[in-house]
Amino acid sequence: MINGSEAKKSKVLKLLREFVEMSAMGEGLTQILIPVAALVGIGFALFQWFLVSRVKVSSNDSSNEYKEKLIEADEEEEGIDNLEVSIKCAEIQHAISVGATSFLFTEYKYLGIFMGVFGAIIFLFLGSVRGFSTKSEPCTYNQGNTCKPALANALFSTIAFLLGALTSVLSGFLGMKIATYANARTTLEARKGVGKAFITAFRSGAVMGFLLAANGLFVLYVSINLFKLYYGDDWEGLYESITGYGLGGSSMALFGRVGGGIYTKAADVGADLVGKVERNIPEDDPRNPAVIADNVGDNVGDIAGMGSDLFGSYAESSCAALFVASISSFGIGHDFTAMSYPLIISSMGIVVCLITTLFATDLFEIKNVSEIEPSLKRQLLISTVLMTAGIAVVSFFALPSEFTLYNFGTEKEVKNWHLFFCVAIGLWAGLVIGYTTEYYTSNAYSPVQDVADSCRTGAATNVIFGLALGYKSVIIPIFAIAIAIYVSFSLAAMYGIAVAALGMLSTIATGLAIDAYGPISDNAGGIAEMAGMSHKIRERTDALDAAGNTTAAIGKGFAIGSAALVSLALFGAYVSRAGIKSVDVLTPKVFIGLIVGAMLPYWFSAMTMKSVGSAALKMVEEVRRQFNTIPGLMEGRTKPDYANCVKISTDASLKEMIPPGALVMLTPLIAGTFFGVETLAGVLAGSLVSGVQVAISASNTGGAWDNAKKYIEAGASEHAKSLGPKGSDCHKAAVIGDTIGDPLKDTSGPSLNILIKLMAVESLVFAPFFAAHGGLLFKLL
Amino acid sequence: MINGSEAKKSKVLKLLREFVEMSAMGEGLTQILIPVAALVGIGFALFQWFLVSRVKVSSNDSSNEYKEKLIEADEEEEGIDNLEVSIKCAEIQHAISVGATSFLFTEYKYLGIFMGVFGAIIFLFLGSVRGFSTKSEPCTYNQGNTCKPALANALFSTIAFLLGALTSVLSGFLGMKIATYANARTTLEARKGVGKAFITAFRSGAVMGFLLAANGLFVLYVSINLFKLYYGDDWEGLYESITGYGLGGSSMALFGRVGGGIYTKAADVGADLVGKVERNIPEDDPRNPAVIADNVGDNVGDIAGMGSDLFGSYAESSCAALFVASISSFGIGHDFTAMSYPLIISSMGIVVCLITTLFATDLFEIKNVSEIEPSLKRQLLISTVLMTAGIAVVSFFALPSEFTLYNFGTEKEVKNWHLFFCVAIGLWAGLVIGYTTEYYTSNAYSPVQDVADSCRTGAATNVIFGLALGYKSVIIPIFAIAIAIYVSFSLAAMYGIAVAALGMLSTIATGLAIDAYGPISDNAGGIAEMAGMSHKIRERTDALDAAGNTTAAIGKGFAIGSAALVSLALFGAYVSRAGIKSVDVLTPKVFIGLIVGAMLPYWFSAMTMKSVGSAALKMVEEVRRQFNTIPGLMEGRTKPDYANCVKISTDASLKEMIPPGALVMLTPLIAGTFFGVETLAGVLAGSLVSGVQVAISASNTGGAWDNAKKYIEAGASEHAKSLGPKGSDCHKAAVIGDTIGDPLKDTSGPSLNILIKLMAVESLVFAPFFAAHGGLLFKLL
Repeated sequence: MINGSEAKKSKVLKLLREFVEMSAMGEGLTQILIPVAALVGIGFALFQWFLVSRVKVSSNDSSNEYKEKLIEADEEEEGIDNLEVSIKCAEIQHAISVGATSFLFTEYKYLGIFMGVFGAIIFLFLGSVRGFSTKSEPCTYNQGNTCKPALANALFSTIAFLLGALTSVLSGFLGMKIATYANARTTLEARKGVGKAFITAFRSGAVMGFLLAANGLFVLYVSINLFKLYYGDDWEGLYESITGYGLGGSSMALFGRVGGGIYTKAADVGADLVGKVERNIPEDDPRNPAVIADNVGDNVGDIAGMGSDLFGSYAESSCAALFVASISSFGIGHDFTAMSYPLIISSMGIVVCLITTLFATDLFEIKNVSEIEPSLKRQLLISTVLMTAGIAVVSFFALPSEFTLYNFGTEKEVKNWHLFFCVAIGLWAGLVIGYTTEYYTSNAYSPVQDVADSCRTGAATNVIFGLALGYKSVIIPIFAIAIAIYVSFSLAAMYGIAVAALGMLSTIATGLAIDAYGPISDNAGGIAEMAGMSHKIRERTDALDAAGNTTAAIGKGFAIGSAALVSLALFGAYVSRAGIKSVDVLTPKVFIGLIVGAMLPYWFSAMTMKSVGSAALKMVEEVRRQFNTIPGLMEGRTKPDYANCVKISTDASLKEMIPPGALVMLTPLIAGTFFGVETLAGVLAGSLVSGVQVAISASNTGGAWDNAKKYIEAGASEHAKSLGPKGSDCHKAAVIGDTIGDPLKDTSGPSLNILIKLMAVESLVFAPFFAAHGGLLFKLL
Repeated sequence: MINGSEAKKSKVLKLLREFVEMSAMGEGLTQILIPVAALVGIGFALFQWFLVSRVKVSSNDSSNEYKEKLIEADEEEEGIDNLEVSIKCAEIQHAISVGATSFLFTEYKYLGIFMGVFGAIIFLFLGSVRGFSTKSEPCTYNQGNTCKPALANALFSTIAFLLGALTSVLSGFLGMKIATYANARTTLEARKGVGKAFITAFRSGAVMGFLLAANGLFVLYVSINLFKLYYGDDWEGLYESITGYGLGGSSMALFGRVGGGIYTKAADVGADLVGKVERNIPEDDPRNPAVIADNVGDNVGDIAGMGSDLFGSYAESSCAALFVASISSFGIGHDFTAMSYPLIISSMGIVVCLITTLFATDLFEIKNVSEIEPSLKRQLLISTVLMTAGIAVVSFFALPSEFTLYNFGTEKEVKNWHLFFCVAIGLWAGLVIGYTTEYYTSNAYSPVQDVADSCRTGAATNVIFGLALGYKSVIIPIFAIAIAIYVSFSLAAMYGIAVAALGMLSTIATGLAIDAYGPISDNAGGIAEMAGMSHKIRERTDALDAAGNTTAAIGKGFAIGSAALVSLALFGAYVSRAGIKSVDVLTPKVFIGLIVGAMLPYWFSAMTMKSVGSAALKMVEEVRRQFNTIPGLMEGRTKPDYANCVKISTDASLKEMIPPGALVMLTPLIAGTFFGVETLAGVLAGSLVSGVQVAISASNTGGAWDNAKKYIEAGASEHAKSLGPKGSDCHKAAVIGDTIGDPLKDTSGPSLNILIKLMAVESLVFAPFFAAHGGLLFKLL
């Protein structure tokens, strides 16, 4: 019987298999499905935006219409707060939005100059590979055929770079817009209950998540098709140029993360040091002159910066996968559907995330505070489970059942289900990292509670325990990454790593939604405080915010995990493109690269942390000055000069983002040009393995301190009550830890993802140049 | 004219060269010079001890003789303090000495068990390589000849391991003995002036430095000659077995550093948190129950632990160099003098350090406080300059002018002056690291002053700036190490790295002298405070101590720098022994090793820091308990229960040193046995490049915080005065930073050297086993 049913099964499987092989998607279907998925994503985002916009608020504070609207809004609420409060909310939202927009525009001016200059560098360096010759050349991998001249690749790489940069900027900007559009709405909805507020904040996060994922896919898809008009059958050149898209995305993300990170933390640390510690006024108190700058910072740093960052990861992993595929049998055999496998995975991701979002917004309803965090966690799990099925479908339909991949000079036979495992393990490794991060940063578990407990003996033990927690929190993520790398590499070489990274990022829309939810709730709480809303409202927004802290940490965990896989994939692509056969640690060229590369995250963190420190000191002086010189400020009779604090954060962040930015952008150029491709390979490997650790530990330490403080403030358990209340010695120690954690978790930590990815993608783009002209110093010696 | 003199010069040079080649040292001379140098070193150490012993003090507090002696001592002084004070000094010294001795003996009991178990593991693992066969085998490198059986290598490796372990224990123990012998003497001499006190402390440091360097050399030399009786012409087996010496040395150092580090910092942090922060009593106040434990800690952690650590580095770099040489033309051609080049370098180092010491003790005299730090720095410079000449002499006399080295399967032709450059660049890289460390940790320069300044805005900014300083301080050392590696590897492959490490350690006697000087001065200050000596005396010992903080940081810099080179050399030896031809980052086996290896320093630091934190919490509770329950304690009318605090530190450190110790000892065994030699190679490379950064930044951050606090306390400049005085808000913030820095700089930071070295040497010793039976997991899959 068993044998009979086994035989039947295997027969069915065989038939299914044959059917699958027959029905592998044609190019036509692929050409339709990808843009349709992207447009569905954009449409869904706009629909969510529309739903959010139904919560009426207006920041046009001079028109009559505005007041009418607010009255309307007021009618909806349960009479807890009055009209005045609603007007205040609108005003504050307006101030935050204006501040954030103005900062981003100033930042984009600088970035525009950078894009121009760096675009020119790309063109000149890559153009010089064959001496600016306009003649076609024999292909490198697709032997016997003719490929387009290096000059064309230089031009198209530059164009791709600019497209990536613009898309990245757009992603960040749109995210900021929706976030500042949603924060006051979340506050107002909090009057109706925590469930309503949660849905508003979460929907707004979803707008950002879907816009970003769908835009990124759409622009990439359109670019490939436009480039193809010129490149025709030269897919080597086509996908080599497309890597510029990843470089553009990540270089904008670098400045977004660093600039935004310095902005937000200078304001936050400055506001806390004088407000909370010296003047003993609550967080987000409107009397604090730095309070608007602090709230602006959440939007430009945590929203715009993070959006650019994850867009960069997404663009890079797609580019890495496409590039590796282009020099495998997909590219050489011109199988467009198989070639587009990474894009189809992303398309499937959009559909899966769409369904997942409905679970949070429509299928379940949050009724009380304790359901918030589980609901957000469930989003991760649902999207992962659904996506696993989605990957299986894509892998069976879009891929030939067997194909050949290029593996550093050798060839490797791969089956379609191998790729399924590669993508899936990346996806599940992401979940493991997310859940581990949650364990170490949520105050529902013992690690954060231990840190809170250590505040009994003061700030010093709090810091010691917090640092130890951060160090410890790297263990599981690193093993998860290592296993994902080993499995995916063993199954499908560097292409496996690239698609594993894509797998981790395939649920990016959901990841971003729950990540953006954090700063929106944070702002909502700030607005409630500033508008003087009732204690009850503040409690609700605080609960949203506490969950947001954890999800922000989870988001950072994802960003770091995917960055590690992405940069390894880019590293592999770089090594292939530079024609290196092995990166042997036993050669001195490689080893010095490795040890110096491992040092770079420290150098970079030193710069960014010191920047935050210095900018915060300036902020502290300004805030102190205002408290001391503006009469009636402390009593709430006069308004502080918010604009001056915004200006200090803006100036400091724009000035201070240049040195760390230069370090990251110049290192690959210097290492490649003067020391050659092997040393650069060492630098990339070193910065990758060291940077991941620093980034994870910094983010989690900061998250843990923040939630340890919130744990004491909330006083939800006997243990927590014994440490509190606000203002106790324990709480003061916790505030110190929180302040130290700010630059760790929001500036240096998350910027490190970009350091490792960006250096790798930059090396990949410049690889033809380094291979042709690099290693000047060793040539001279 | 010019041409004529040039011609003459070159003729002279040629003649000299021929003379040198003729007079290359014979085996007989080598066999005499090495033991003589070692005995001279031991003799010099005993002579310094004798000089220190002329400062009369006795801890035999019940005999009449003792009192007479103290009266005698009293007669010598200038009448500042009275007899009672001297008796107190003797009592305190006695208490510290008893506490330290008792802790070390308890620790050694545990270590004895460990030695037995681990010795058995070595024997069983290595014996199993050829199934415990007693038959001779064909040699691996010296082809055509017969070598001793693997079983013999197993036995002799075990013996070497035990010898190394015992020598390490002896080094640490003797160091502790002389330090506790010298601390009260330094206090008493401080009554005569700062110069006298300085000489006493420095001489005592020199005793430790010379005893350790000379003992290490002597035992190694004797072992080689005894092993030779059995091995005869089988130098492969001989020097392979000798590597066990390094393993023994470093594994004791691991427990010494970790156990001692936890001990000292639990006591220190605990004493500070209650004493300084809560009760507002000064450091080292005799009313503080943890004060004796704190002073004991300095001796078991900073002295015994550090002594074992540097002995380990020395033993390992010698073993790595000897092993690599044994499979080069030196070994195959049986050129004993060239083979002993590493030992001759160490012998020369002893002579050079002896001369250098005279500059500090006899040729110059310290007359005031500001001369202390320059004098110690001068020691480093003098020894480096003299040693450079010494290396040149050794390289020309002990080496053939040209020879062949083995380089991972290929051969490399090397000249004697190549090796000169290798050793010299290691030596000078050490000086660069030392001076950089000084720049970042001494309060004479702007980095520490900036950190002190950041205390204006509280503890949080102090911590942010301190962490940033630590991160920044890795840049120059890493470049120095990278250059040393590149040059020495290019000139003489892995042997070049090994002798570069030896070069950095060749002035170990001086390095240890100035390093041990620190804790001795620290103890002297503590004794002055506890004995209630006058403010003037305390000022003098404080000045000695402040310089000691910087030299301790320099010593740690050396320890880390040399550890990096040593472990790279051991790594090279391991790779050679395991028969790996390349360690290619592009293979998944290696890469997962690399990223997991880079994570280990974090895991290890998390354990050690948390241990210190937990132990400190226990200490805090005990100290608080005593203050609350012992009536009259705060008023100084009753004595606290010192012994209980000593017990808490002892128990905590012995219990807590096991998990981090197990992590370090088991990782190579697990990685090698289950994942194979390539993954293990990745782990070693990853932990090396990542651990160096963590170690340097942790040590320097801690050192900087300590000196920022001292800067504010001393108030020597207008700027410093504006931050102080003791007890101001700035000072309180600085104390918090100092407390956080304690476990960083004295527990986790310095233990990381051992992590990276020990894993490498353990891998080397077990390499034959891994090569034969390793990689079980991959074999199964």
